[in-house]
Amino acid sequence: MDLGMVGLGRMGANMAERLVRGGHRVTGYDPGAAAREQAAARGIAPAASLQELVAALPAPRAVWLMVPAGAPVDATLEALLPLLSPGDTVIDGGNSNYKDTQRRAARLAEHGLHSVDSGTSGGIWGLKEGYSLMIGGEDAAVERLRPIFETLAPAPERGWGRVGPSGAGHYTKMVHNGIEYGLMQAYAEGFAILGRKAEFGLDLEQIAQIWRHGSVVRSWLLDLSAEALAKNPRLDGIAPYVEDSGEGRWTVAEAIDLDVSAPVITASLMERLRSREKDSFADKLLAAMRNEFGGHAVRKQGD
Amino acid sequence: MDLGMVGLGRMGANMAERLVRGGHRVTGYDPGAAAREQAAARGIAPAASLQELVAALPAPRAVWLMVPAGAPVDATLEALLPLLSPGDTVIDGGNSNYKDTQRRAARLAEHGLHSVDSGTSGGIWGLKEGYSLMIGGEDAAVERLRPIFETLAPAPERGWGRVGPSGAGHYTKMVHNGIEYGLMQAYAEGFAILGRKAEFGLDLEQIAQIWRHGSVVRSWLLDLSAEALAKNPRLDGIAPYVEDSGEGRWTVAEAIDLDVSAPVITASLMERLRSREKDSFADKLLAAMRNEFGGHAVRKQGD
Amino acid sequence: MDLGMVGLGRMGANMAERLVRGGHRVTGYDPGAAAREQAAARGIAPAASLQELVAALPAPRAVWLMVPAGAPVDATLEALLPLLSPGDTVIDGGNSNYKDTQRRAARLAEHGLHSVDSGTSGGIWGLKEGYSLMIGGEDAAVERLRPIFETLAPAPERGWGRVGPSGAGHYTKMVHNGIEYGLMQAYAEGFAILGRKAEFGLDLEQIAQIWRHGSVVRSWLLDLSAEALAKNPRLDGIAPYVEDSGEGRWTVAEAIDLDVSAPVITASLMERLRSREKDSFADKLLAAMRNEFGGHAVRKQGD
Amino acid sequence: MDLGMVGLGRMGANMAERLVRGGHRVTGYDPGAAAREQAAARGIAPAASLQELVAALPAPRAVWLMVPAGAPVDATLEALLPLLSPGDTVIDGGNSNYKDTQRRAARLAEHGLHSVDSGTSGGIWGLKEGYSLMIGGEDAAVERLRPIFETLAPAPERGWGRVGPSGAGHYTKMVHNGIEYGLMQAYAEGFAILGRKAEFGLDLEQIAQIWRHGSVVRSWLLDLSAEALAKNPRLDGIAPYVEDSGEGRWTVAEAIDLDVSAPVITASLMERLRSREKDSFADKLLAAMRNEFGGHAVRKQGD
Repeated sequence: MDLGMVGLGRMGANMAERLVRGGHRVTGYDPGAAAREQAAARGIAPAASLQELVAALPAPRAVWLMVPAGAPVDATLEALLPLLSPGDTVIDGGNSNYKDTQRRAARLAEHGLHSVDSGTSGGIWGLKEGYSLMIGGEDAAVERLRPIFETLAPAPERGWGRVGPSGAGHYTKMVHNGIEYGLMQAYAEGFAILGRKAEFGLDLEQIAQIWRHGSVVRSWLLDLSAEALAKNPRLDGIAPYVEDSGEGRWTVAEAIDLDVSAPVITASLMERLRSREKDSFADKLLAAMRNEFGGHAVRKQGD
Repeated sequence: MDLGMVGLGRMGANMAERLVRGGHRVTGYDPGAAAREQAAARGIAPAASLQELVAALPAPRAVWLMVPAGAPVDATLEALLPLLSPGDTVIDGGNSNYKDTQRRAARLAEHGLHSVDSGTSGGIWGLKEGYSLMIGGEDAAVERLRPIFETLAPAPERGWGRVGPSGAGHYTKMVHNGIEYGLMQAYAEGFAILGRKAEFGLDLEQIAQIWRHGSVVRSWLLDLSAEALAKNPRLDGIAPYVEDSGEGRWTVAEAIDLDVSAPVITASLMERLRSREKDSFADKLLAAMRNEFGGHAVRKQGD
Repeated sequence: MDLGMVGLGRMGANMAERLVRGGHRVTGYDPGAAAREQAAARGIAPAASLQELVAALPAPRAVWLMVPAGAPVDATLEALLPLLSPGDTVIDGGNSNYKDTQRRAARLAEHGLHSVDSGTSGGIWGLKEGYSLMIGGEDAAVERLRPIFETLAPAPERGWGRVGPSGAGHYTKMVHNGIEYGLMQAYAEGFAILGRKAEFGLDLEQIAQIWRHGSVVRSWLLDLSAEALAKNPRLDGIAPYVEDSGEGRWTVAEAIDLDVSAPVITASLMERLRSREKDSFADKLLAAMRNEFGGHAVRKQGD
Repeated sequence: MDLGMVGLGRMGANMAERLVRGGHRVTGYDPGAAAREQAAARGIAPAASLQELVAALPAPRAVWLMVPAGAPVDATLEALLPLLSPGDTVIDGGNSNYKDTQRRAARLAEHGLHSVDSGTSGGIWGLKEGYSLMIGGEDAAVERLRPIFETLAPAPERGWGRVGPSGAGHYTKMVHNGIEYGLMQAYAEGFAILGRKAEFGLDLEQIAQIWRHGSVVRSWLLDLSAEALAKNPRLDGIAPYVEDSGEGRWTVAEAIDLDVSAPVITASLMERLRSREKDSFADKLLAAMRNEFGGHAVRKQGD
């Protein structure tokens, strides 16, 4: 079927290419000319503007947004609103906060537009392996997009599904990412312990490879850890600095709002914050307190 | 090749059967007559005593222990010691503490015996899917057992390996289980958050199934979660009570000994302890303190 | 000086009484007739309505709100707005969220009214020992209230201060309570460990008493713990159920917003949530997973 | 009464001086000549050797050890054993592990010697304010030392007590320190949040001073924090590096041994370990994983 893809960054371009390979006609728009050119080379029909993109699509239209969460989604929606017609559908495939998604769905509904939110997992591997899609929205709107989801997913009947009304897709993706933080941190701690045990001289990549087959901890994140360790066994040159992109924070906030204890997901987020604190005031105060009560020497900055 | 298997419980009998299916001759001993009979029905030659087991094996012998960690391993080793001959090998395939393993290896070496420790993961699925084996011991001793490991593992060249000297196998398995605690807790928290979000009416099994394909959090533990949720979507009748079997505790102790911060593995252990505290003194004291300073009402036991 | 006190619950009535004892004239309003009567018996001039209260105060007026955080504060402010005159000051002495305080201050300013927020600590002991007051607002507005603060505080020059602009008082109180959660949890865990060590038969109250003098952990919360343990050494009959009143949640949200790692304050909040989960889904799923991979028996509900 | 003090470091010399000021006769030994000279200047009779120290004491003797925990205590005890006589008492006032204390008490009992363990809190302030003493040992042995404890404590009847048999004193001190870690971390996190809130420009020392009077979080550690912040408001030049001296680790191990969940004490320990990890392997692996699955840029070491 026909689809407009707005945003031709790494994720958007890959998804569009997977759809083209699957026999769909995809028109793509990105504000960057280079992104449009690269997309064209991958079989995506480039549009020079949102107007062109909308004009290229038969009604009822389906427009997929793959733009950064937050203000860019709102800006794109505001620009699209006057261009679209009742009955068209807008899909937000990014990592929007589910409350924003609910708010936007209400606004789009006022204009007779359908909203679908697709929490999308799979990263840069999705082009080849397919994406896991957690979808929110009205049944009929989701159903109309079935051909798209069946192509994006790893297999037509697997790895995608409508999980609930508008917002439910992004909600599920948010929790997915919260879990992801916990899983990653568990592996990271385990490998750190193994690596510190000098007496055994353990080979972390070998252990990751052993675990990939038959062990209780086998997973895709372990596969990736094995690859990372194969390329760079001691992770030389990589700074111990870990970004977070929002969903972990929202998951913690949501757990607290719901009165659900989530100590491990929360601790995983705290560790990421901690990784970026190079001069922790808390630690300095701890050192100062120890000096006050016990006369314990304080290490000087730079020691 | 020939192998003696001591301990024909769930794990021991399954491993022996996988070896028999793979063409090995396995003689099995268990103190329970019923266990021996069932083993015989699965193609394992039963021995009525350790003497019989040792007598049935050609020298140099290989005897695999699959008995509960701790005192049972020591008792079995003491009973075996007078029966074995220099050049024989004893494999401990259970979840022994690596320090015990190192101590036992030294004692066996005094008698000219070889020691191999095999951290074994795979649970009740290992019979069919193969076991992940993390092996410690001298190179030559491990190499002599290659046919055994190649059959137990998911494939001859995958899922097993010698990771270091005596103790290194159990050490690696210990950390494996520490990671496992963290992974499990991350999923458990995530599904708890999803399940508590009444407004979306999410179907947890459906979400687990979606995630199994293409998502960043796909893993074997997720596959198992999906199965558990398929059987019992709300986990009715299951008590919120979580055992632990030692390796998590040891992992935490080891992290601390090595000065490695491991907040998520540690928090996962704490949660298991917490699940078994039905009348937490700490919580009672918190409630009592709030009453003392703020006059906040204390809930009575049974309310 | 003259002060109007709106809200004659435990905190409001105590604070008003402390002011009366200190020589101030306090007019008090509460929607409950019983509360008004009790206040009258304590030297507080009762007002039957907000109109009466405002009418009883000389301009420029000072009206202190001691009502539950959230909607009640907004409702009270809306009712007061038409009654007050430019130059009057409203003090919010409750546990309002600092963002609400900032919003309200802007609204009051539109009407020429001054706002002061007083984070108030001390609980039911404040009547006798004085309150610790963290104050936000314009300098001049705070300064005009100096006689009030000097009487409410433990001593005229101690235990109170203007910490910043509107909202800063409630912000500081919010963090104060976050710290309080952490302190309480640390003591609770420590006493739980002591109490579980059967071999020593430790007397927890005695230990609390010893620590109160000369130890590094001496504190007011320890004093209160000693009192609680003196009354009820094993805390019999107290349910292990711990409420929270919002500031802990806000502190965690604020830490995350500011990218400050706060693992202990966060864990303390999680423990309170956990104390109220009597049938944790997370724990049930952990038990179910263990059953799936290892065949470990699941405890039945009610066992 | 007469007391021998072995170890004239900061703690030992201060305790000896407090005893001398209280009218006791203290003979002190330290391997360092300078320490002995300084002690002499403070009214402590110096002994040039353990032999001299023992010879200077009337039987039954009381010898207080204030030497570093671990091997130094064992070495000192072995050196003292042949010099002492049945009926003499040895007090270990340091931070020994309670299991070592139990082992040593059994060994001393074989020689007819009494053992007393005194968990000692108060740090460098104890000389002036008195020490909090948690005492283990037989009743009669503790009772004989009553004059010593009454002088060391903040007041004769307060701040000290026999809490149980040998080891119970050090056990109680161990948990005391575990709590201390949690309290310190709670304050440290709270002040870090306050300090990061740029919009309010909060003065941390002022806030600490306000809280010291009337607030729920008032404590001695807060008093010390206020002093540290008064001297150095932004803690300039202090490295964010926090040592630990063992009792926190033991408290965590003990909690786990007793199946008591202690998430906050544990997290506090983890934070100290974390403060000393300047190139965390776990964080590097997290960054590498994010790069593998999402193509997220990795920060280079030194960026």
